[in-house]
Amino acid sequence: MSSVSGSLRSRKVKMTENEENYAAVLYGPSDLRIEKCPMPEINDDEVLIRIECCGICGSDLKMYSTGKCGFESVTEPIILGHEGAGVVVKVGSNVRSPAVGERVAIEPTQPCRACAQCRRGRYNLCPTPRYCSTAAAPGNLCRYYSHVADFTHKIPDNLSMEEGAAVQPLAIALHACRRARVRVGSALLVLGAGPIGVLCAMTARAMGATAVLMTDVVASRLETAKKLCATHTLLVTAAHSEQHVAERATELLGTAPDVSMDACGLASAQSIAMLATRSGGTVVIVGIGGERAEVPLTGAMLREVDVRGAYRLLNSYPQALAAVSSGAIDLKSFITHHFPLERTKEAMEFAKTGEPMKIIIHM
Amino acid sequence: MSSVSGSLRSRKVKMTENEENYAAVLYGPSDLRIEKCPMPEINDDEVLIRIECCGICGSDLKMYSTGKCGFESVTEPIILGHEGAGVVVKVGSNVRSPAVGERVAIEPTQPCRACAQCRRGRYNLCPTPRYCSTAAAPGNLCRYYSHVADFTHKIPDNLSMEEGAAVQPLAIALHACRRARVRVGSALLVLGAGPIGVLCAMTARAMGATAVLMTDVVASRLETAKKLCATHTLLVTAAHSEQHVAERATELLGTAPDVSMDACGLASAQSIAMLATRSGGTVVIVGIGGERAEVPLTGAMLREVDVRGAYRLLNSYPQALAAVSSGAIDLKSFITHHFPLERTKEAMEFAKTGEPMKIIIHM
Amino acid sequence: MSSVSGSLRSRKVKMTENEENYAAVLYGPSDLRIEKCPMPEINDDEVLIRIECCGICGSDLKMYSTGKCGFESVTEPIILGHEGAGVVVKVGSNVRSPAVGERVAIEPTQPCRACAQCRRGRYNLCPTPRYCSTAAAPGNLCRYYSHVADFTHKIPDNLSMEEGAAVQPLAIALHACRRARVRVGSALLVLGAGPIGVLCAMTARAMGATAVLMTDVVASRLETAKKLCATHTLLVTAAHSEQHVAERATELLGTAPDVSMDACGLASAQSIAMLATRSGGTVVIVGIGGERAEVPLTGAMLREVDVRGAYRLLNSYPQALAAVSSGAIDLKSFITHHFPLERTKEAMEFAKTGEPMKIIIHM
Amino acid sequence: MSSVSGSLRSRKVKMTENEENYAAVLYGPSDLRIEKCPMPEINDDEVLIRIECCGICGSDLKMYSTGKCGFESVTEPIILGHEGAGVVVKVGSNVRSPAVGERVAIEPTQPCRACAQCRRGRYNLCPTPRYCSTAAAPGNLCRYYSHVADFTHKIPDNLSMEEGAAVQPLAIALHACRRARVRVGSALLVLGAGPIGVLCAMTARAMGATAVLMTDVVASRLETAKKLCATHTLLVTAAHSEQHVAERATELLGTAPDVSMDACGLASAQSIAMLATRSGGTVVIVGIGGERAEVPLTGAMLREVDVRGAYRLLNSYPQALAAVSSGAIDLKSFITHHFPLERTKEAMEFAKTGEPMKIIIHM
Repeated sequence: MSSVSGSLRSRKVKMTENEENYAAVLYGPSDLRIEKCPMPEINDDEVLIRIECCGICGSDLKMYSTGKCGFESVTEPIILGHEGAGVVVKVGSNVRSPAVGERVAIEPTQPCRACAQCRRGRYNLCPTPRYCSTAAAPGNLCRYYSHVADFTHKIPDNLSMEEGAAVQPLAIALHACRRARVRVGSALLVLGAGPIGVLCAMTARAMGATAVLMTDVVASRLETAKKLCATHTLLVTAAHSEQHVAERATELLGTAPDVSMDACGLASAQSIAMLATRSGGTVVIVGIGGERAEVPLTGAMLREVDVRGAYRLLNSYPQALAAVSSGAIDLKSFITHHFPLERTKEAMEFAKTGEPMKIIIHM
Repeated sequence: MSSVSGSLRSRKVKMTENEENYAAVLYGPSDLRIEKCPMPEINDDEVLIRIECCGICGSDLKMYSTGKCGFESVTEPIILGHEGAGVVVKVGSNVRSPAVGERVAIEPTQPCRACAQCRRGRYNLCPTPRYCSTAAAPGNLCRYYSHVADFTHKIPDNLSMEEGAAVQPLAIALHACRRARVRVGSALLVLGAGPIGVLCAMTARAMGATAVLMTDVVASRLETAKKLCATHTLLVTAAHSEQHVAERATELLGTAPDVSMDACGLASAQSIAMLATRSGGTVVIVGIGGERAEVPLTGAMLREVDVRGAYRLLNSYPQALAAVSSGAIDLKSFITHHFPLERTKEAMEFAKTGEPMKIIIHM
Repeated sequence: MSSVSGSLRSRKVKMTENEENYAAVLYGPSDLRIEKCPMPEINDDEVLIRIECCGICGSDLKMYSTGKCGFESVTEPIILGHEGAGVVVKVGSNVRSPAVGERVAIEPTQPCRACAQCRRGRYNLCPTPRYCSTAAAPGNLCRYYSHVADFTHKIPDNLSMEEGAAVQPLAIALHACRRARVRVGSALLVLGAGPIGVLCAMTARAMGATAVLMTDVVASRLETAKKLCATHTLLVTAAHSEQHVAERATELLGTAPDVSMDACGLASAQSIAMLATRSGGTVVIVGIGGERAEVPLTGAMLREVDVRGAYRLLNSYPQALAAVSSGAIDLKSFITHHFPLERTKEAMEFAKTGEPMKIIIHM
Repeated sequence: MSSVSGSLRSRKVKMTENEENYAAVLYGPSDLRIEKCPMPEINDDEVLIRIECCGICGSDLKMYSTGKCGFESVTEPIILGHEGAGVVVKVGSNVRSPAVGERVAIEPTQPCRACAQCRRGRYNLCPTPRYCSTAAAPGNLCRYYSHVADFTHKIPDNLSMEEGAAVQPLAIALHACRRARVRVGSALLVLGAGPIGVLCAMTARAMGATAVLMTDVVASRLETAKKLCATHTLLVTAAHSEQHVAERATELLGTAPDVSMDACGLASAQSIAMLATRSGGTVVIVGIGGERAEVPLTGAMLREVDVRGAYRLLNSYPQALAAVSSGAIDLKSFITHHFPLERTKEAMEFAKTGEPMKIIIHM
């Protein structure tokens, strides 16, 4: 795709009065329509972005498939997509950066900045954020999109636009790895070798983790993981007991993991994480599970294993961009498939197969 | 009891060759015997202590009643008690402190000092500690007891011997409150107004917590809590849903708690804690629950509520002693009942009623 | 003064069209004038406050005396005062809290909310804050003042307006004590028994510090400190070497301090702090010293004593208000003198004597 | 040298009764003698190691040149060297690991394990450690050496013995980088491109630092740094003001450094670090400077730049070994010169030139 992104990059920035906006709008489960929609207006603190590409996320897929994801549901039509990147075409009067013509990755939230969470630097916990592709704010699967300037991040020159888009899930992984307190020399267990699991493992390696065991029920995912980031892999099946997997993890790593990350959102994965992690270590739950979970909590508590969630992302975009730009993390092989905006529905159906690592939609 | 402790304190330190040792030995559930046992020997790093008093802990009671507690069980006769205080009567050749005649509180563990946990300063997670009143080490319900010198702590002059003994559960509460990250201005929810819950609340107040709601199913406990440490109390019954109690907690505190502590070891309490705690806050589980628990984990994780255990105690004895000595924490009203060693079984049966806050056994 | 604050509180909230604004304006060193000035306007996010009282801070005094303080200087006339409290008389259309008629303490900053520091929750390090009584924003020594709503804090009912004003320096002390990592059982050395030193010591006690040694060159200040917060005091003179004072601190505390706080801004105090603090402890510098300081840095570094500054305040107002409201900290005896707005210059001259702990100006 | 280490590795473990011990003994400045000395005895917790190689450290050189280093001085003859690696030839009766025949790197300290520092996991601050090559304990520049078993660390199979020795300074760098709170995406300024500066930069890169500017007064060192770890370099001279270097650092990095590390022990470097580091960032001082330093402390404090020392090493050996074994850090090009034990004095004189990065002495 380098030719495409190259050509995208060379395009002149322009937006005529006549230009029209189109978006991928979800009306309900599997009811996704490409529609003409109004050109967004910007206020003094915002920028207008001509989106060039946008990644498809697991939560987009969940929303598309079921009409629900986490705390959110499709109560009215919503524009999907929160992994957008594009070129700034207009800036508000207060905006000092970015400038028109600059390429930016969109951090897909606009927190309130006034609540206790925002003030203490945990804006991902803001109770009233305008998060892209929810009822509170449109998504990035559109041609033109407006966003508050300081939640857009300049894409370094040596990154393609697609990499700029894919930095969003990387920033999530980076936040999760910070919450997990990954350190140089850490041994990790990552449960689930889907996109987020793989990015967590890649990030952990970039932070100095020296042993990373990834598990999954799909062998092909483990092969990919092995290429990208895993030092060890373990194929698990329903026949394996939680205790068995936990013990195998310690055997394979040569030590109980300092950190275990659940990147699949299953109570069984969370249970394995609690059983396997060394005393005083950390379990981080990135996957979104069912409302209640039956887990071996007491043993983990008696061994002072901290159980922590990681929600969306927090102050991790600049670091994620720097990590890719410096070569510490390689996103190129993480991006596997491309579709134009018109074929978003097809892309969603293909994503359901679980085969693609990261699909990028081009506008 | 001030007269008793006064007279104890004035006794001369002496130990004749003929002096004999007696201990409260548990042979199995409800089978507790006062027996003559050998005088302990000390090595170069140890001190011999003439125990004067020892508190009865919830785990002693659990072991007495069921023969099991946490990871431990009565596989052979064990001497109970791990809240001991006494006078040093003999010191090993390497011991510079404490000196013969000094009053000491016994920190009831002797970690290995060589494992990774000990080296990183988390000796409470040492996998092979010699913890008092387990199969690995005798307890303190005896007349003479030997312990490594640096895990004994001088009792300040303005504390009674009973307070010195009761510092042990306080040191546990202090460790739990550290794990909970209690801060000045924190709002707390403490589930369970038994001895540990009350000590956690007292400690939290001493750390600057400004609002502490305690819950229990026994009204009289809440009355005591109100006198000692709680700013608010809530009587709960089986009829209340977890969600209801969580909401009431926020109403009563005027804010969702920064910290919730489970001091009863029930999955329902842990669930309430997870539901009630503010986003980004901390749940600490001090109580020992069943092996598995069904809890609303996902919601807590999505709100980045950290779930952490607190196991035994860690570097908290000197601070606990200082807090009592300085008046920041008042243990006197926490100590409610006294028995002589001969009547330990009777004390255990009385403890079963749940009525006493802290029973002290005198040797 | 309780009668005054009582009468203030009972006044009805009203502001007629004709009402005029007056302020204490500093034109240069010692050139302070009470002047009529325009009534502030408010935008949608702001509230208009009828200031009732405002404390005089050491930095106000420094600015008044020298025309300079820290990074700031009087390049154009500025309204002094950043410890204001008053009643809300008007609210912008977006403001949900506070409401008209409510009593509020003013957190005297309005950070940009968009820079990296603001986003990571360290808005006190924002490079472009609108901090009261600087060139960037007017102060609170005036009758009417507008401020962004979420940086005002409701004063609890059981606090007087004067206490509400005095919460500002307490919030600074609280921030400093957090930076100092004061813990339950900590031993502290506080160098300088002026208002900030005393408030740091009071806060440290509320956080569980069990031993607090305060030093000063003025005996009367130490007497006050002894009454309010210090467990030990030490009168120092120019004749004492830094090493001597450091050693005496350890003798008096019975241990090397876990934390040492410089609350006077002198290189000698900073040096004593570095020498005295235990290995692995923390030195916090609250006082503003000269540009360069000659200090025994190497020894402190080899013993891993962390040297940290504390700048203004950060997320500490609600906790400070809660601490006063709950009784954990008593500000009443900290407030020592009162003046009306008209006599602000007289108050400044009186403050120069170093005698008053906290002067409150009433509008 | 791979052939040498290969042949070392294939040697059989043996120690005959007749075998003799030789050591490099320092009698005073420049007075280094190779002497026969007694074969060490081991107690139950110790192992006897046949040293194969040992690195020369800057502090060895300082001690050799001046007879003093930090808190230490040559009051009686001392065996130099604290970067030793070898093969276990005998184990005490309590030792479960390592076993006879295993290759180990020696963590050159034996802390007391009973003081408050050891108990809280900061054994590098133990006031009475038996640190190699000080008056308290012999060094590793000898043929046979005994050490407590748990402060030796197995060398992974894919590491040479020389790399095992060189892990010691790496473990120091790792400790310093932890103290510096290096994170993925961090920008660093490292002042001094000697061995410790280079290892700090290498470690920082392994922890995810994306931009590392190194400064030195010697151009050739910067060339080496550029090859091994630096993303940017800056040659400094006495003519450059501190302010100028600080500003250049920000220009070159494109941002003020999150972390600045003084790896040369000069007040001027510490001053540059304080000036350059971003508000809220961290200065770590690894180099040992003069007793007093004149530094721009106030500005750093007002910007809440934490100034922290890093002393020796702490719980960093296993992570350092894992980092080298996993390929995250490459020590091979860091090791530049080799000498046999007999020529240690010559190696010291050569080291004085500042030319070699790391000299390894072979026994």
